[in-house]
Amino acid sequence: MAKTPVLTPQAEDFPRWYQDLINKAELADNGPVRGTMVIRPYGYGLWERMQQEMDARIKDAGAQNAYFPLFIPQSYLTREAEHVEGFAPELAVVTHGGGKELEEPVVVRPTSETIINDYFSKWVQSYRDLPLLINQWANVVRWEMRPRVFLRTTEFLWQEGHTAHATYEDARDYAAYIHREVYADFMVNVLGIDVVLGRKTPRERFAGAINTLTLEGMMGDGKALQMGTSHELGTNFAKAFQTRYLTADGRQELVWQTSWGTSTRMVGGLIMSHGDDNGLRVPPRLAAVQVVVMAIKGEESVARVRELGDTLRAAGLRVHVDDRVDTPFGRRAVDWELKGVPVRIEIGPRDLEAGTAMLVRRIPGGKEAVPADALTALLPKVLDDDQALLLEQSRHRRESRTADVATVAEAAEAAVAGGWARIPWAVLGEEGEAKLAEQAVSVRCLVAEDGSVPDADDAPGTVALVARAY
Amino acid sequence: MAKTPVLTPQAEDFPRWYQDLINKAELADNGPVRGTMVIRPYGYGLWERMQQEMDARIKDAGAQNAYFPLFIPQSYLTREAEHVEGFAPELAVVTHGGGKELEEPVVVRPTSETIINDYFSKWVQSYRDLPLLINQWANVVRWEMRPRVFLRTTEFLWQEGHTAHATYEDARDYAAYIHREVYADFMVNVLGIDVVLGRKTPRERFAGAINTLTLEGMMGDGKALQMGTSHELGTNFAKAFQTRYLTADGRQELVWQTSWGTSTRMVGGLIMSHGDDNGLRVPPRLAAVQVVVMAIKGEESVARVRELGDTLRAAGLRVHVDDRVDTPFGRRAVDWELKGVPVRIEIGPRDLEAGTAMLVRRIPGGKEAVPADALTALLPKVLDDDQALLLEQSRHRRESRTADVATVAEAAEAAVAGGWARIPWAVLGEEGEAKLAEQAVSVRCLVAEDGSVPDADDAPGTVALVARAY
Repeated sequence: MAKTPVLTPQAEDFPRWYQDLINKAELADNGPVRGTMVIRPYGYGLWERMQQEMDARIKDAGAQNAYFPLFIPQSYLTREAEHVEGFAPELAVVTHGGGKELEEPVVVRPTSETIINDYFSKWVQSYRDLPLLINQWANVVRWEMRPRVFLRTTEFLWQEGHTAHATYEDARDYAAYIHREVYADFMVNVLGIDVVLGRKTPRERFAGAINTLTLEGMMGDGKALQMGTSHELGTNFAKAFQTRYLTADGRQELVWQTSWGTSTRMVGGLIMSHGDDNGLRVPPRLAAVQVVVMAIKGEESVARVRELGDTLRAAGLRVHVDDRVDTPFGRRAVDWELKGVPVRIEIGPRDLEAGTAMLVRRIPGGKEAVPADALTALLPKVLDDDQALLLEQSRHRRESRTADVATVAEAAEAAVAGGWARIPWAVLGEEGEAKLAEQAVSVRCLVAEDGSVPDADDAPGTVALVARAY
Repeated sequence: MAKTPVLTPQAEDFPRWYQDLINKAELADNGPVRGTMVIRPYGYGLWERMQQEMDARIKDAGAQNAYFPLFIPQSYLTREAEHVEGFAPELAVVTHGGGKELEEPVVVRPTSETIINDYFSKWVQSYRDLPLLINQWANVVRWEMRPRVFLRTTEFLWQEGHTAHATYEDARDYAAYIHREVYADFMVNVLGIDVVLGRKTPRERFAGAINTLTLEGMMGDGKALQMGTSHELGTNFAKAFQTRYLTADGRQELVWQTSWGTSTRMVGGLIMSHGDDNGLRVPPRLAAVQVVVMAIKGEESVARVRELGDTLRAAGLRVHVDDRVDTPFGRRAVDWELKGVPVRIEIGPRDLEAGTAMLVRRIPGGKEAVPADALTALLPKVLDDDQALLLEQSRHRRESRTADVATVAEAAEAAVAGGWARIPWAVLGEEGEAKLAEQAVSVRCLVAEDGSVPDADDAPGTVALVARAY
């Protein structure tokens, strides 16, 4: 549409394209404190829709929302040894409150395992109280040395699930259920991102977990983004906080726990999965605005788009009417393109006469004049096709840019070149993993040969997926 | 139901009744850092429903959600003189981040006027960008010396609206619109609380505002609770942050602003408005669970309540099925009573034979056997009646416990005795207001004689509403 590109082209400089898009589509700004971000209304609208879809799935999984304090006594963090080691370097510490120096400094939560266990240890008495399934939507703070909007920010928004179970098996199955039925279902079927489900290596595990399940997406530049994780915590936090229950036969046992989280980082993943040189492309199932009905110019067009907007809304579509005819049409069209609204319906004076509308599709690209009265029947199909296309493009990218390799050197080479490599874990091992790290390449996850998630690090036939990552 | 009271009776010790109810109904716990709270799932469910109802009204008022950082540079607070004076004693200060002492300490937001104006000053260029209508759902921190769960906590959850307008009139009208059409509409029609809408005296105004509108509810003990406020900020923050716009005729002008907020304090207001010696009573329009269908005992009852639950859900009611027949029925009934679910439907073996169900109404009290197949038709009417009854009881309490008085001494006496007093503002004045403060009595708001909100502090016939407050 525009002759000079609105954004730095992806092929020229992918990180700069990402930052350009975030600015021009008005998704977010940097905050005044280093590493923080201001999420602008259009960007926040993406997050709100993610929350809605995720919250419904989390509730279907039986978890209830609650809220735990932002401030955690510093001493809580130290109770689980690996946990404090993992988080200590990233903490923000409040030393003064109400005009006085505090007796014990408090940390701003980087995650809530510790404070939640303090309450689980009070709430859980007997096996009848289990499983205890809690989720919270909250902000967390991890001091970030190399911030990047949505991807790595000092403060971010997320949901964190925390559960307690009577047995190892029950906890393991629940972590896997969240991984598959909540996270993967949402990311594949709503975000349209063909994530790989796998298991983290010991090196990449969450601080305090006995197993971390992950979902990895391939971004437009071939790098990986960890889109969410689901952890088995074993009895590590239960031991630290003495979270025990009375069994049916009268014994006191430690609970088995899980925790799992996804964050505003998913907004970054959405941008880098589906964005192109003209801006964002929002999957129809996620989009708060699926269809924008635009008046090109003239009062009659304005009346017509308002009416059409009502008709399409009544048909169950999420519609925005753009009747700002005093703003140049070209500028508005570029803006909707940048913001990635799946479908634009443009109506001008000539369309009024002809009874037509211009249907412009952001996802596959292209436009065609269609009879205006055919839109109600046409659009649901168009949106379904576009949703499927995004997932197909995501799958195609991942498949075409993933190489099966046999040596550590080949794996590093493929990753540095901007793709993923699959290498037998028995060949790579923890030694090879350490070697890859020297070139900023990591094992994103372990997968079984058939694509399923391995039960253990050393399951026979396990393959390591290797890449550079955000 | 139970012979020994489950809660301390209200008449014996209202504050202890409040705390008992919060514990026994599992609404919240105290957090480990003084003044913080853990909102448990049932309490959080009340807040979630408040958010849903409020969010829809806020969006209808044209505001869009966004998110601004938790951390504000300390220097921002000092830019508006009254604002910093008001908030400085309550700030939590982060001095260390990522293992190092920060060059400039950051404060944890007590409210976001300053940081939001920093961005408004960038986003607002011309009159075409106005009005700019933003809302955010967030946590805020105000160090609290005398904390009480939900009512005054060091951290609380809230929504804060922030808007910028081209003219004084537009800002004034928007602040009034939020006050009336968003806040009062929600509080009266959903919460069932007969709030008084008024104007704060200069002494009680928000730090940095030129006018504060308030909604005051009378609690069960006759004290007042400020349920929400909507402020006209004039150009105070615009001056401090140089938030200007280009007018249609090419001049640079300061924007006129509003801000408005409601918080988890409303949960406390709900409890103290509608709770009784048996527990909470949740208004049907708010309730996440309007009807609990309980199996008394036996497998057949379980099958029947599940089936009935589906039928009632299909009729559009929010239903929970309680089929935990291995837990004593009496304990479960007391628990639902404590939690204030409006209607219980109890089904036991005898009901199965007779085709009846016991309908137990929490709000007016009382129970009656009804034909099970009449429930779908009956319940919507029952719930409407109960909603209306709560509002009527709230109105009756306020009217019967508000006295018209003629002197400052009488006003103080009425308030100390546990009621509200109405006294002409011309009689009371700022001197009388200072005198009342010595007895911990305050002017909750100014109202016009006809009950409307006065345009100015010195409008003729203005009446001061005087009370003790939470």
